Amino acid sequence: MESGKMLYEGKAKRMFETGDPEILLIEYKNSLTAFNAQKKAEMEGKGRYNTLISAWLFGYLSEKGIPSHFLKLVDDNHQLVRKVQILPIEVVVRNITTGTLCKRLGVPEGMRLPRPLVEFYLKDDALGDPLITDDHALLFNWASPEEIKSMKEKSLAVNEVLGDLFRGKGIILVDFKLEFGRDSEGNVLLADEISPDTCRFWDATTGERLDKDRFRKDLGDVLGAYREIWKRLSGKEE
Amino acid sequence: MESGKMLYEGKAKRMFETGDPEILLIEYKNSLTAFNAQKKAEMEGKGRYNTLISAWLFGYLSEKGIPSHFLKLVDDNHQLVRKVQILPIEVVVRNITTGTLCKRLGVPEGMRLPRPLVEFYLKDDALGDPLITDDHALLFNWASPEEIKSMKEKSLAVNEVLGDLFRGKGIILVDFKLEFGRDSEGNVLLADEISPDTCRFWDATTGERLDKDRFRKDLGDVLGAYREIWKRLSGKEE
Repeated sequence: MESGKMLYEGKAKRMFETGDPEILLIEYKNSLTAFNAQKKAEMEGKGRYNTLISAWLFGYLSEKGIPSHFLKLVDDNHQLVRKVQILPIEVVVRNITTGTLCKRLGVPEGMRLPRPLVEFYLKDDALGDPLITDDHALLFNWASPEEIKSMKEKSLAVNEVLGDLFRGKGIILVDFKLEFGRDSEGNVLLADEISPDTCRFWDATTGERLDKDRFRKDLGDVLGAYREIWKRLSGKEE
Repeated sequence: MESGKMLYEGKAKRMFETGDPEILLIEYKNSLTAFNAQKKAEMEGKGRYNTLISAWLFGYLSEKGIPSHFLKLVDDNHQLVRKVQILPIEVVVRNITTGTLCKRLGVPEGMRLPRPLVEFYLKDDALGDPLITDDHALLFNWASPEEIKSMKEKSLAVNEVLGDLFRGKGIILVDFKLEFGRDSEGNVLLADEISPDTCRFWDATTGERLDKDRFRKDLGDVLGAYREIWKRLSGKEE
């Protein structure tokens, strides 16, 4: 894959220009990071699974009427995506309480919420991605009222579609993080990635963690969990 | 003042039963605490100014159609109040950015907001009173939708009335914290106190801090600031 100037390198991805100013090339890295990058590791094959899983899920969401920046898979570590201006807000959707939510608010672990909880976090590593309210986003011009509404609606729609999908694969979608971007016409488009790096997946029968929590909590066989998610989605043994 | 069993001792107040089960006696302490009680001091006379200022402000708000738990001043350190069940949410209203907001979100200090910002914090010292959204409050049963609406409306009304009042006294009402309680009929009633412990007051001419920031930031003459607020409200020299 011919690629142009690198525009950005993040914790898990690199982005490159292509010949088309509206299209970017994303390379998925093998880096694993947790706790705001205080814990780091390299894991051969992780980038590949995230590339494949994310492409598969974006394709599935698009079929279900939720488009994203994703255009096509280039190879096992590269995707072409539409160029968007990423909004500085991470959207978290939670179906079951766990992780930082429980630590921060002192609520019990593993509680199924009566309805999905949508949270906004300011995308700012130096500040540790703090929780924000809609009013913070509005008053500090991080998003418009329409963008906030659109992000919430789309996040809940993603939760419904992926919740059903994973239920059918014997997996509980516990929570996940989404990012959104503005395209050149100002539309809010689902962006970034959806993978075991950005979701919590629990095996519906055994409760086994099939996501980055295996890395966060030193549960072992991190790559095996990513492989398992890919296997259940694609139906392919590897 | 005859008082019954102590029901509660907080950082700045003690609460006692009275002969009437619907009425409590509040004693204002001379303790100053900041940064979730990591910084502490005793200051003779502080409790008295807060008693007088809070009683004066609650009286003023009541005249302007915003009732509170406050019933009457007993003496310079004691008030009678209606017994309410305090909601586990601290409401912060901000007109100008400063303090934890700026640290947490990386926004500039001293910015006048285009409209007042209302924030909810979970009242939990062990957790450091974390910021919460409306949805957290609803999903974890910390308040009902009606209580959330009522707290927001009343907080904005208090901001308008007190903002005007202090403007007339040469003081900028920068931000403040309110607490609310449920009375025996389930109504949401303004409670706790309103004082230089719970508000940020800046002199409109000199910018001088006339509140607990003098203690937080070691600016000196803390008591003088509290005395100045009382003087401007009451019109009395002491």
